[in-house]
Amino acid sequence: MAGILEGLRIVECAAFIAAPLGGMTLAQLGADVIRCDPPGGGLDHNRWPVTRGGRSLYWAGLNKGKRSIAVDTAIPRGREIVTALATASGPGAGLFTTNFPARGWLAYETLRKQRSDLIMVNITGNPDGSSAVDYTVNCAAGFPLATGPVGHEEPINHLLPAWDAITGVTAAVGLLAAERHRGRTGEGQLIRLPLSDVAFAMVGTLGHIAEAQVNGEVRPRHGNALYGAFGRDFATRDGKRIMVIAITPKQWQSLIEVTGLAAEIAAVESQRGLDFRREGDRFIARDGLFPLFERWIGAHDLDDVATAFDRLAVCWGLYRDFGDLVANDPRCSPANPMFRLVDQPGIGRYLMPGSPLDFSGVERLPPAPAPLLGQHTDEVLASVLGLSSRQIGELHDQKIVAGPEAG
Amino acid sequence: MAGILEGLRIVECAAFIAAPLGGMTLAQLGADVIRCDPPGGGLDHNRWPVTRGGRSLYWAGLNKGKRSIAVDTAIPRGREIVTALATASGPGAGLFTTNFPARGWLAYETLRKQRSDLIMVNITGNPDGSSAVDYTVNCAAGFPLATGPVGHEEPINHLLPAWDAITGVTAAVGLLAAERHRGRTGEGQLIRLPLSDVAFAMVGTLGHIAEAQVNGEVRPRHGNALYGAFGRDFATRDGKRIMVIAITPKQWQSLIEVTGLAAEIAAVESQRGLDFRREGDRFIARDGLFPLFERWIGAHDLDDVATAFDRLAVCWGLYRDFGDLVANDPRCSPANPMFRLVDQPGIGRYLMPGSPLDFSGVERLPPAPAPLLGQHTDEVLASVLGLSSRQIGELHDQKIVAGPEAG
Repeated sequence: MAGILEGLRIVECAAFIAAPLGGMTLAQLGADVIRCDPPGGGLDHNRWPVTRGGRSLYWAGLNKGKRSIAVDTAIPRGREIVTALATASGPGAGLFTTNFPARGWLAYETLRKQRSDLIMVNITGNPDGSSAVDYTVNCAAGFPLATGPVGHEEPINHLLPAWDAITGVTAAVGLLAAERHRGRTGEGQLIRLPLSDVAFAMVGTLGHIAEAQVNGEVRPRHGNALYGAFGRDFATRDGKRIMVIAITPKQWQSLIEVTGLAAEIAAVESQRGLDFRREGDRFIARDGLFPLFERWIGAHDLDDVATAFDRLAVCWGLYRDFGDLVANDPRCSPANPMFRLVDQPGIGRYLMPGSPLDFSGVERLPPAPAPLLGQHTDEVLASVLGLSSRQIGELHDQKIVAGPEAG
Repeated sequence: MAGILEGLRIVECAAFIAAPLGGMTLAQLGADVIRCDPPGGGLDHNRWPVTRGGRSLYWAGLNKGKRSIAVDTAIPRGREIVTALATASGPGAGLFTTNFPARGWLAYETLRKQRSDLIMVNITGNPDGSSAVDYTVNCAAGFPLATGPVGHEEPINHLLPAWDAITGVTAAVGLLAAERHRGRTGEGQLIRLPLSDVAFAMVGTLGHIAEAQVNGEVRPRHGNALYGAFGRDFATRDGKRIMVIAITPKQWQSLIEVTGLAAEIAAVESQRGLDFRREGDRFIARDGLFPLFERWIGAHDLDDVATAFDRLAVCWGLYRDFGDLVANDPRCSPANPMFRLVDQPGIGRYLMPGSPLDFSGVERLPPAPAPLLGQHTDEVLASVLGLSSRQIGELHDQKIVAGPEAG
């Protein structure tokens, strides 16, 4: 079964989240992504969460569908092998590096001497090439001081490494854009993508820079209240918690109709001189509106709320922890064609996602497990570099490459 | 100046964050993105944050670099115009729709009758096509119950609409992958991308599904402590707050060396029988390690901490609110080539980001402001559809299209 990116080959010299996620995004669409690691694994090979046996669920999650070659780049011959892979002839070779020093033998200027139309993506921490990680960019990006309960004093980091995630997918956009350009012009190039640029660009795109510079305002904490419209978390009578949203006029009307709160809401509206057809006015009057919905939702069990809300397409959702999500949400189960139960060598069988992109013109690729470290060493050396069994054997003998770790 | 995606045209019938961000991602790389809205604006035209005059900073942020046509699709002739735009001949026409009913005249099966190789991206809430927004997906994704201080009972929503952001960039990946495929096969297609699939795929990729299913564990709150390695926020003597991280051995060694805490740390290590060369062991002993760093960092002013940390490349960052970021971080200023001060018609002059992707082979496109609603109505009707001035005048007379709103 071929994915939509069949024929695109990427060599990945990277670790942690952003660049490996970029490679995985392309691998799950059918690109041949060859991840290079030192024998024994790179910096992220044992990153938590791990199984009780110490196998990294993190590494397995971020390297699904790739091929793995274990090669020691502390040795000149190992560097030659990675260089040869990254610059091998073919229609779609590209290269991802990240946080790694893309200097010396891994510098674009060095590698392009071997292949002038090379495409290389280099993810850095900061625009000047200095190091930074999601957590040390996030603290500067403003969100931790605007996330969490009103009145809370300390920063609250979100658990989701969102900047890594957005950077990884953006790297995939950059590589595809450059490959399109190469198809038209024959030219390759170096693509620089700093993690902090991704974060601060998003701060601007979401309006926070303009709020500060144009309005002279810094967004304070609003707890779980949706800024600029109606929305918050509410507790049901049976102790469940739900998120309820009304941004569009239709969502607001549905919510009023279901709850039968029209008269009480109209009283708040006229008392404050507001017009709740305007979403912003619903936010301004939130201290008057939230208690009405607290009472209504708090007087009903979740099942009844769900039935009533779904009947009129109210926009809402149930809070779940990760365990509840996996156990009880059919969208996160084998009933969803994006997911399958897959055997991950060395770890076991669990639910794995494929790409969330579903193309009508090509069959959906099922999720593939991450490789064992070095699982494809011999296969890649033979098929991409054309090495003979004898040559591959010598590389093993000299400890320049390694085969698969035990599963 | 031409961007790397020159010649790619996208018609965008969308609102809110995900799909407009997908369009903007491509527009900032040089694609011609034509956003279609009803005269007077769509559902998101007045979304908060707004200026004191009521202009949406949100809309301006998400539509940078696009062209705008105002056309009333409640009228059959208006629907014909959008259909003609979306299916116009040319090398790169594609279409984004979102949360909109991609049914009836906007259905892929209807539109492809006009252009068989159409590429259409349809972002939905859930895989079954039902509606959901970032906030009602996020509540089910597990993160709000794992974000925030240890012991906190209620969910904490992160302010960043991360799922919208990741979905928007993923949509751009999908469109570029499909355009690559069309270049090879001549075939267009419909790309479905559910917001909830993006979120739950990321839950899996980051290891939370495997943690639940393989380890039988649900990640609890760890406050601002970095899971599985050393990291947390600390207060300096002068009341600033910083994030400090040590994931790699080098980061950990730098931190020990700068702080001179080697003996105290070794005592914790031997007392617990751990090996702090392993990042996970630093997390296990965090209650023993954090107080040592609290004392050292709390005994120094920020300036001294910064000088000492930077000298040995400790991985750290300063917490800033949005105002502090904009006022004091040079990475978020015109000193960064990604940013420029730009005049946004109707709003004023403020700092705007271009694409964080920097391609060595093409000149960097400076950030362009968002259009006024309907700013390009006549230009698009003439250049893309070949309508005459008389025909365009008639469309205005019949209130089927509208020109630019006042700036």
